Amino acid sequence: MKTIFSPDQMLHAPQFEVSDGKLEPAKEIPSRAQMVLDRLKAVQFGEIIEPRSFSLDPILKIHASDYIEFLSDFWRLWTEEGRTEQEAFPFVWPVRQLRTDIVPDQIDGKLGHYSFDAGTPMGPHTWTAVRRSAETALTGAAMMAEGARSAFALCRPPGHHAHKSFFGGYCFINNAAVAAQYLRDHGAKRVSVFDVDYHHGNGTQAIFYDRADVQFLSIHADPKVEFPYYLGHADEKGVGEGEEFNLNYPLPHGTPWEVWSRALEEGCASIEAYKPDVLVVSLGMDTFEKDPISQFKLKSEEFNLIGERLAKLGLPTLFIMEGGYAVEDLGVNCVNTLTGFRQR
Amino acid sequence: MKTIFSPDQMLHAPQFEVSDGKLEPAKEIPSRAQMVLDRLKAVQFGEIIEPRSFSLDPILKIHASDYIEFLSDFWRLWTEEGRTEQEAFPFVWPVRQLRTDIVPDQIDGKLGHYSFDAGTPMGPHTWTAVRRSAETALTGAAMMAEGARSAFALCRPPGHHAHKSFFGGYCFINNAAVAAQYLRDHGAKRVSVFDVDYHHGNGTQAIFYDRADVQFLSIHADPKVEFPYYLGHADEKGVGEGEEFNLNYPLPHGTPWEVWSRALEEGCASIEAYKPDVLVVSLGMDTFEKDPISQFKLKSEEFNLIGERLAKLGLPTLFIMEGGYAVEDLGVNCVNTLTGFRQR
Repeated sequence: MKTIFSPDQMLHAPQFEVSDGKLEPAKEIPSRAQMVLDRLKAVQFGEIIEPRSFSLDPILKIHASDYIEFLSDFWRLWTEEGRTEQEAFPFVWPVRQLRTDIVPDQIDGKLGHYSFDAGTPMGPHTWTAVRRSAETALTGAAMMAEGARSAFALCRPPGHHAHKSFFGGYCFINNAAVAAQYLRDHGAKRVSVFDVDYHHGNGTQAIFYDRADVQFLSIHADPKVEFPYYLGHADEKGVGEGEEFNLNYPLPHGTPWEVWSRALEEGCASIEAYKPDVLVVSLGMDTFEKDPISQFKLKSEEFNLIGERLAKLGLPTLFIMEGGYAVEDLGVNCVNTLTGFRQR
Repeated sequence: MKTIFSPDQMLHAPQFEVSDGKLEPAKEIPSRAQMVLDRLKAVQFGEIIEPRSFSLDPILKIHASDYIEFLSDFWRLWTEEGRTEQEAFPFVWPVRQLRTDIVPDQIDGKLGHYSFDAGTPMGPHTWTAVRRSAETALTGAAMMAEGARSAFALCRPPGHHAHKSFFGGYCFINNAAVAAQYLRDHGAKRVSVFDVDYHHGNGTQAIFYDRADVQFLSIHADPKVEFPYYLGHADEKGVGEGEEFNLNYPLPHGTPWEVWSRALEEGCASIEAYKPDVLVVSLGMDTFEKDPISQFKLKSEEFNLIGERLAKLGLPTLFIMEGGYAVEDLGVNCVNTLTGFRQR
């Protein structure tokens, strides 16, 4: 299995985030990718290649053009308004009765319009890293479309919290959604996206919620007690043509492998019934027992079992890196998953 | 004219706020009220009395009961979850496709559910101060209902950004809305709320948007370039029975008295046409040229002119304190307005 990655993805290097009521050191940092790269090399997992270049077109099939324009222009606008901070945080949002049909001219108003949290800082090189991360996902999708049986897109920044027109949860472009759409546009009739990150893939769900051609499944911490809080409940099954093609498995804090793996089984059974041409896995390692911001109890060796179970589906499978913040163990757990998949 | 104020309103004493992309010293601080009190005493403006006590009923006529329960229980929930920070900030919000029909159990999820910005910290005594501030407004309303021609409710924390079920912009309970509703319930057939704060009174607008019995008018910085950004445009005229009873006068950065006063004239003409029984003025002093977070150019002596013009309406008038952050000049500008009103 080949890994796709670009050093440009390291250019997004936040210092701080607003989380749990305080300004804290950022957790979605370049060393996350480095740990995975180091482990891939240490075990000689396979070739690591640079992503290809793509036009914005495949990204614009998922994201609104004004949103992508905002992301790509952001740092110019920020500095043109005379702002000198090296990290930008939104601080006000258009909830409920507030309007989203008029985009403010002022940069702080724009930041809130295009986001849903205060924990996702933007810096001078964020767009470069974000676009390159999406190209990493697209390269993986292109390789699958060209016949590869598997690939690992080492995306960073991650993507699954990014919606059609707003960012948050460390995510800007929804890499998994962009890849799934690319696969649909290049031969696949049906695509399943299985999100095994600790956090609900709210962006991916919302993007495909009314569609029958992309099935979305997510095992995650119950949003009643965990970020992103406002999506990911079991009663969200899709709408219109998408009805029954959205499956959420919210689980309580403290969930161990014995319980988590039952949701994995259920998800796999639903994928088998759906009969997709290709599987996209939103791979988060924050289900790990030592993850600093998460509350599940998976052990390192159990990540091998995830890979093995997914391999049993017998589908062409594209892994897309999402979260995971126990930086020292991240490489091991990630490569364990991929190894379990490959060795099956 | 009597002033109503309780020292309990000082108990909300935030240290920090998240604003313009960074953690900054808080601006909505107890000394704001102290400056006004000092000036009132210095010029012997009139008697300063303590607010009466009220049940929650008149507050619950404006705000959702689950929201008020959240505000009153917040600090207990915060500490019961083991949180030790002395200020709580929300950091994730249910925008657009995200759900608001399920209130999260976890405290950070609740904080985002019940707010629209990151600049409004809650501390151990916030609820005490907020409730007392609302009682200050209610006492003013009761005095008007009992026949007073004018009163000054020195509310702090302010209220005009607070919506039915979410806080923000330093505001928790919408004091002006609660007072207007009290007046409606105690003899007034029609009430006008005239908001002259620099920022749009988004909460007050939303609360009365579909009602014909409360007219809302606001002169403020254009939301395309200024907080709260997502409400306050000129095309917002009310809905249903409320149609034509919502009037916004958004003005550009740099607006001087010559321009601002034209909007004041227009607003006064609309109030005269509406023929309310009583006028509630949401009195912000952040239109002042030296206000640290605002961009209008009103001078101290022009606040007298605001008071004089409002007095010409000849209506029983309840002043409710809102914003204004040039702490040293705040007392002068506030008392200038009240003096201009009284001397007319």
